[in-house]
Amino acid sequence: MEARKVFLTEDEMPRQWYNILADIKMNPPLGPDGKPIGPEMLAPVFPMNLIEQEVSTQRWIDIPQEVLGILRIWRPSPLVRALNLEKALGTPAKIYYKNESVSPPGSHKPNTAVPQAYYNKAFGIKKMVTETGAGQWGSALAFACSQFGLECKVFMVRVSFDQKPYRKAMMETWGATCIPSPSPETNAGRDALKKDPDTPGSLGIAISEAVEAAVSDTTGESRYSLGSVLNHVMLHQTIIGLEARKQLDKIGKYPDVIIGCAGGGSNFAGIAFPFVLDKMNGKAVEIYPVEPAACPTMTKAPFVYDHGDTAGYTPLLPMHSLGHAFVPPPFHAGGLRYHGMAPTVSQLITEGIITPRSISQLAAYEAGVLFARTEGIIPAPETTHALAEVINEAKKAKEEGKEKVILVNFSGHGLLDLSAYEKYFSGALTNFDLTDKDILESEKIFEKFPKPQLLKSR
Amino acid sequence: MEARKVFLTEDEMPRQWYNILADIKMNPPLGPDGKPIGPEMLAPVFPMNLIEQEVSTQRWIDIPQEVLGILRIWRPSPLVRALNLEKALGTPAKIYYKNESVSPPGSHKPNTAVPQAYYNKAFGIKKMVTETGAGQWGSALAFACSQFGLECKVFMVRVSFDQKPYRKAMMETWGATCIPSPSPETNAGRDALKKDPDTPGSLGIAISEAVEAAVSDTTGESRYSLGSVLNHVMLHQTIIGLEARKQLDKIGKYPDVIIGCAGGGSNFAGIAFPFVLDKMNGKAVEIYPVEPAACPTMTKAPFVYDHGDTAGYTPLLPMHSLGHAFVPPPFHAGGLRYHGMAPTVSQLITEGIITPRSISQLAAYEAGVLFARTEGIIPAPETTHALAEVINEAKKAKEEGKEKVILVNFSGHGLLDLSAYEKYFSGALTNFDLTDKDILESEKIFEKFPKPQLLKSR
Repeated sequence: MEARKVFLTEDEMPRQWYNILADIKMNPPLGPDGKPIGPEMLAPVFPMNLIEQEVSTQRWIDIPQEVLGILRIWRPSPLVRALNLEKALGTPAKIYYKNESVSPPGSHKPNTAVPQAYYNKAFGIKKMVTETGAGQWGSALAFACSQFGLECKVFMVRVSFDQKPYRKAMMETWGATCIPSPSPETNAGRDALKKDPDTPGSLGIAISEAVEAAVSDTTGESRYSLGSVLNHVMLHQTIIGLEARKQLDKIGKYPDVIIGCAGGGSNFAGIAFPFVLDKMNGKAVEIYPVEPAACPTMTKAPFVYDHGDTAGYTPLLPMHSLGHAFVPPPFHAGGLRYHGMAPTVSQLITEGIITPRSISQLAAYEAGVLFARTEGIIPAPETTHALAEVINEAKKAKEEGKEKVILVNFSGHGLLDLSAYEKYFSGALTNFDLTDKDILESEKIFEKFPKPQLLKSR
Repeated sequence: MEARKVFLTEDEMPRQWYNILADIKMNPPLGPDGKPIGPEMLAPVFPMNLIEQEVSTQRWIDIPQEVLGILRIWRPSPLVRALNLEKALGTPAKIYYKNESVSPPGSHKPNTAVPQAYYNKAFGIKKMVTETGAGQWGSALAFACSQFGLECKVFMVRVSFDQKPYRKAMMETWGATCIPSPSPETNAGRDALKKDPDTPGSLGIAISEAVEAAVSDTTGESRYSLGSVLNHVMLHQTIIGLEARKQLDKIGKYPDVIIGCAGGGSNFAGIAFPFVLDKMNGKAVEIYPVEPAACPTMTKAPFVYDHGDTAGYTPLLPMHSLGHAFVPPPFHAGGLRYHGMAPTVSQLITEGIITPRSISQLAAYEAGVLFARTEGIIPAPETTHALAEVINEAKKAKEEGKEKVILVNFSGHGLLDLSAYEKYFSGALTNFDLTDKDILESEKIFEKFPKPQLLKSR
């Protein structure tokens, strides 16, 4: 029997992260005055050691021993051959999924939550503050803080707070405080509540609250933490692709296609970035970030300078954006409901190195159910988008009669999202695919900002 | 850095289950006439190949290739050194947990659900019917049936059906049908609804419904399935201990103490039975099945003949029992709310080969939270009982200054039980420890049955 899983030992875990900033050219982030910002401007928000990592162009960055010690609670994660899915599709393609759902919070998010908590603690920080939408990121930071004995506070978008009580319970089990946003604890929260006491909240407001709570702590011992988009987050996630590469090496394989879903871009970057240099050097590998057709940042939105948050507190970032005030339709993959995209991922798209794809909601759930009934594991709603694209590629391989190797990041399980599957089965879900016309209006918001240059890295 | 996890490759997976019936003497199950029953009496309920396994006394039984092929979706499961927990306790003990939460449904249950589905399919059965309380077993059978293309129907105790919608969604995602019990679909269900249309249901009624639904299918293509108690279920679970034994061998260790929680007995049997023969041959190893103090079957109830179900449909089994009409207090570890105990586990207790322990509800959750905050993974409410005993043993090792090796079965994660943790944090949980006086009354129910012999296996 061919082994279904490829394991690495803990000794074989990567000891360094790969920093893509060494290999691509980037437009700088801009301040309110339209000029590139210096690291010191971020100091009240993030600890300086993480800011240094954010701007570093060193190709390989050592993973601290203390971080490795915690990552190995669940890492190296298995690379699994999706034999049953292949059989169900009758495809000659070989499908390998990197199972990031094996972490305690059930997703790839702790790959960055753990080093972020480590660097904050090393810098003398006592308390980390963040926001969470669907709850994956808040759970991951709660877990990481419990490992380092840090306080953790999570502002959770109220509608999710009410709908997903398990996520709050999970964060509390790890010792974190989780409160619904908007809250009466911050100016941003009080303003929002004054405007509408019954507001369901939004990720934009929650970010504002978390940043404000961190920055306004007069002891100086609190910092804010972000779970995607930023360079250091992409960096930490590259351990996924570096492991996958070693695992494929072990069985003498190299991917023809690499697929990951992309909301802010971090799980996609994690699996894909370690293969990007090969592609830039002419290797024949297709790399597909996959987004929901209901939030088509990469496939339909322009490459512009825009704010990372709704309120406009963050620097202007060079990225594909639907406009920072864009409110996506109410589809269920909460982790993909983001108006922008990581600047590094956006840059690779503008250069044609990676090719974005989009998937409709119903096709995503159909893929998720097929995966569950063949491979056993129930995927997170976000992950189903990547799997739908895998199925498209596997069908194409069947038509073409090609024995392609497909590598996909299985970013998380759906055990805390089962109500969404319930809705799918009851027929209560629909597609919310957006057209060019739908999104035209929202783009006007960044017309006043400078335009990024179209840079060519090679 | 010492490795945190001990892995086996798929090639190193055990190829045979260990059958304890080869090494211990057992009282036979009795029919309604008080005489030992023959295998043929069970034929309408179970397929004959599983009945043969139920009564086999062959020491090693081959695991079919098709079963291995599916088990390796998640097996071999990791053996993990609980380094952070040891550190938090300041104990010289080395604690190893066998992580059975890595299966798609999140517990050890699919170890038997998969072979049961296989043998049913091999016998020509098209549909499996079962009951579930907390939902772990129903989910596992739904998963297993999806792998073999069998229909699956689960009667779920109504109060759990209403309180735990995620479990139903999980079963449906794997293609099973899950309906609340009592239902209008069976005589047993209709009777119960007639008596009380608002009844919360019970495991006893659900078993009756599932057996009736299987047996009354006139096509003869349906069979019933049980997730614990029976000999063949214990047999299938021994893969846990056989793997753990190999993993400990790899690092040159042998357990001083083996611990597992016990409701019907199957996860405990899984980890412990492969070490029992050593103990019988004089090896110094302590083996502790752990039950809730609110359902003290092993520590307070007598060894008797009693029915396995509330309605009295099953044969009389020789076991520790609180009486088949016993209703446990409303504690939250649903998988441990059973009036009886596997006959094999009960026999080992009567011979003094294993030593039962009991844990109060609050101590169990306290242990669960400590485990989550040190080792990261959130344990199922059932599993917390085993962990509480591990902590007791680790503290004892500290007092005695002994470097004991403790092996524990981490039977499942608590991601679908987070509402119980929420209640614990809010102070809404209490202990329900029962006294001898509390249980005296319920025992009268088996006074009329024959008494089992006190057999000595060695």
